[in-house]
Amino acid sequence: MTTGKVTLLSAGPGDLDLLTIKAAKALAAADIVLLDDLVNPGIVSLAPRARVIRVGKRGGCKSTPQAFIQRLMQRYAGKGLHVVRVKGGDALLFGRAGEEITALRHAQIPVEIINGISSGFAAAASLGISLTHREHCQGVTFVTAHKQDHGEPNWAALAATGTTLAIYMGMTRIESLCQALLSALPASTPAAVVQWAATASERRWLGTLDRLAIDPVKEGLESPAVILVGNAVGEAVDWVTHHETRACAGDAHAAFNTWQDVTGTVQHAA
Amino acid sequence: MTTGKVTLLSAGPGDLDLLTIKAAKALAAADIVLLDDLVNPGIVSLAPRARVIRVGKRGGCKSTPQAFIQRLMQRYAGKGLHVVRVKGGDALLFGRAGEEITALRHAQIPVEIINGISSGFAAAASLGISLTHREHCQGVTFVTAHKQDHGEPNWAALAATGTTLAIYMGMTRIESLCQALLSALPASTPAAVVQWAATASERRWLGTLDRLAIDPVKEGLESPAVILVGNAVGEAVDWVTHHETRACAGDAHAAFNTWQDVTGTVQHAA
Repeated sequence: MTTGKVTLLSAGPGDLDLLTIKAAKALAAADIVLLDDLVNPGIVSLAPRARVIRVGKRGGCKSTPQAFIQRLMQRYAGKGLHVVRVKGGDALLFGRAGEEITALRHAQIPVEIINGISSGFAAAASLGISLTHREHCQGVTFVTAHKQDHGEPNWAALAATGTTLAIYMGMTRIESLCQALLSALPASTPAAVVQWAATASERRWLGTLDRLAIDPVKEGLESPAVILVGNAVGEAVDWVTHHETRACAGDAHAAFNTWQDVTGTVQHAA
Repeated sequence: MTTGKVTLLSAGPGDLDLLTIKAAKALAAADIVLLDDLVNPGIVSLAPRARVIRVGKRGGCKSTPQAFIQRLMQRYAGKGLHVVRVKGGDALLFGRAGEEITALRHAQIPVEIINGISSGFAAAASLGISLTHREHCQGVTFVTAHKQDHGEPNWAALAATGTTLAIYMGMTRIESLCQALLSALPASTPAAVVQWAATASERRWLGTLDRLAIDPVKEGLESPAVILVGNAVGEAVDWVTHHETRACAGDAHAAFNTWQDVTGTVQHAA
């Protein structure tokens, strides 16, 4: 019946230059753009034809209910429009894409997924480390500290894998997760926090697991941030200075500035 | 002394449209391009100024030694040139970027890292699943079956995390890894194999853990492939047909065709 469709588009960590070419093409063709609030608002400049609707929903904050977002997507796609649902990072890593795909599938609306750069990768690039340095580990685990039932992940089991841990949404429960990890890993295990990775507001902390619940908090690092734990992180130590702010270069400057202006309020709301 | 630099550039899974805008810009400015052999060779069209050197090294195959690649990077960067080292997927996930960064740092050569789409994400996009569907898991673990000491990862510990497993370089040891996973996970655990994700040669298998060592092999699926195991993978089952070959669309067609021609030999050598 309908010729409409929904594209679940991954906006990456913030720098518009980290969008894929495929994402830029989809935005250029979009009729409707639904924008999450962790996404660089400068992205709308890439969607000149589109009507833009902000549908941010941060954990614990006043936000657009998921059911309403689903209805919006279905309504506009049902009218034959190309709806681009923009999510931060990679849409397939933490972000309820699973539920959105299921709902759209049931409504028989075609869904296209466009991958992007998740902030854990951007954090590693900023630190100048491989997430899976083969002298240290054989993999990396991306895990959210924010479980659906509000319980904690099994940190002992995660630590036992020997993989680098990339912990998302962990800043609000950093004490309890550190306590759990310290039962399973040496206090000297390298650790890092990267807030707003790959944006002009990026801040980094580098240290060891025994200081992870203390120093980054003292230095004011907060959400959105990725916490990295594991020996591979130790490769970063002589590479960056503590809480150094990364300089931004090149043509993404204007977009960054726009973003900083707008995200002032987002940060305040967080 | 030198004004040269090295960019470690992530080429993503193959579709040139999955390059980031930042990667395309770096290629346009490159003097020297060092190309891995799992990278879509069509990428050189984006680096018109560059001298292209192929430095493929597949596990177990005749290949360019790592030390030689390091020397090439240092030699050209030392001459003040912009060297772009192109790696498949994301350079920071399996691919010895860690060693290359360390060597370049010791040689005091500036290194820039540009992230990309790893094939595990492209595989999930192709299957239409979230890697971390919150009804099923709280994370995803990317792990290589190919350890430095040629031993096996601790599959029991990995299974105990309850995360989705995205296993790279696993096809040549699929029997032993399945056996190990079956000791820890139900035989009915959803599993998938995606070969050449996000390319014209893409092939998929969907099933359960008890068939994972048998059916994909029977159907001829082989490296390079990502193996996905976990309940989140079950969301894909009514979404794609078994060993369906994905249709390619749009302007990446020409690049795909070039790639298929060239990779005929690569696949044979694998």
